Amino acid sequence: MNHVSTGQITTLRKGDLTRAAIVEAALQAASRDGLEGLTIGTLAEQMRMSKSGVFAHFGSREELQLAVLKEYVHRFVDDVLRPAVSKPRGLPRLEAILERWVAFLAREMMRGCIMIAGAVEYDDVPGPQRDEMVAIITGWKHELVIAIRQAVAEGHLQARVDAHQLVFEIYGLMLAMHQDARLLRSADSAKRARAGLRRLIGDVRINARRKT
Amino acid sequence: MNHVSTGQITTLRKGDLTRAAIVEAALQAASRDGLEGLTIGTLAEQMRMSKSGVFAHFGSREELQLAVLKEYVHRFVDDVLRPAVSKPRGLPRLEAILERWVAFLAREMMRGCIMIAGAVEYDDVPGPQRDEMVAIITGWKHELVIAIRQAVAEGHLQARVDAHQLVFEIYGLMLAMHQDARLLRSADSAKRARAGLRRLIGDVRINARRKT
Repeated sequence: MNHVSTGQITTLRKGDLTRAAIVEAALQAASRDGLEGLTIGTLAEQMRMSKSGVFAHFGSREELQLAVLKEYVHRFVDDVLRPAVSKPRGLPRLEAILERWVAFLAREMMRGCIMIAGAVEYDDVPGPQRDEMVAIITGWKHELVIAIRQAVAEGHLQARVDAHQLVFEIYGLMLAMHQDARLLRSADSAKRARAGLRRLIGDVRINARRKT
Repeated sequence: MNHVSTGQITTLRKGDLTRAAIVEAALQAASRDGLEGLTIGTLAEQMRMSKSGVFAHFGSREELQLAVLKEYVHRFVDDVLRPAVSKPRGLPRLEAILERWVAFLAREMMRGCIMIAGAVEYDDVPGPQRDEMVAIITGWKHELVIAIRQAVAEGHLQARVDAHQLVFEIYGLMLAMHQDARLLRSADSAKRARAGLRRLIGDVRINARRKT
């Protein structure tokens, strides 16, 4: 570690706090209006900062959008993946990931998920935002594939399980939950997603008892 | 039938043709840019018409958006539901609906589905467009519930099947197919959706043989 004077640390921290506050406000705004709805102008207004004050932290709208995506992933990993990894490898860990994911998504329902909305916003718009979203979703699917393969290795899931197919179907339940809750205002979308997950896992579980 | 002079028919047809051409162009544009991306101005330019020429057919952008949604449903019903209804009631009809739905969605993948994109565009925007989308999706889910209940009544599916849960999970597969194909550019998303549908139906089929 380099020696850093207290003055420098304070300066650094203050800048970091401002940056974090901007990202927080941007994350809220993006959940409501979409990442494409973000503008430095409205954000500055909301933060009671000057536009140049926001620009001092983010050189462009694109940079801000990418920072929002990174913050989102950070929270998702902290909330969904990290606590689940403390569970024993195999089915307990996989089930913890899925349950925490449903709970995370359920908490987002008032505003909407920037990843699910962003997938539609950016699917036809080449650029760094789209690349970042693809990297995030691909990375997350990879984590799920690993958790499924560990459950197979631990003898909890059948060896015949197609991990990529299972991940595809798990994703489908999450997307259906989002659409049902957000567009149709269904009260039971999290319950339905959980029932679907139970069935999906039950189908490939070793010594599975049939659950309804 | 009332007597209508040839002159009147010709006039009517010409107006109808122009209207249909506008809706067609608007449907294409909405698939690319979203329903919210539609503007009478760019549409008029694309059609080489004046803005007032477009306004003569659609009094407002909202009216045009609703016409696009109605046209979309018309095509979906013609392509997915109507031919499937010619199949015997029960599993053959249900399976025909699902297969035609996947095929319809697969054909939309170059541009994107205005209903799936629109669900995200309008989930937080009260108004006639949102109401129309909710009515369309609710109506379509109802058709699926009917087809599932007929398959139960015909003795093709188990009586314990929860039709609404099954529809939720079917929708999930379609949404996953759309996201995988559109955002991730997966080549096998239709294949994965079909595999998921086979498993879903296989799980509740009477005398089901386990399929992988």
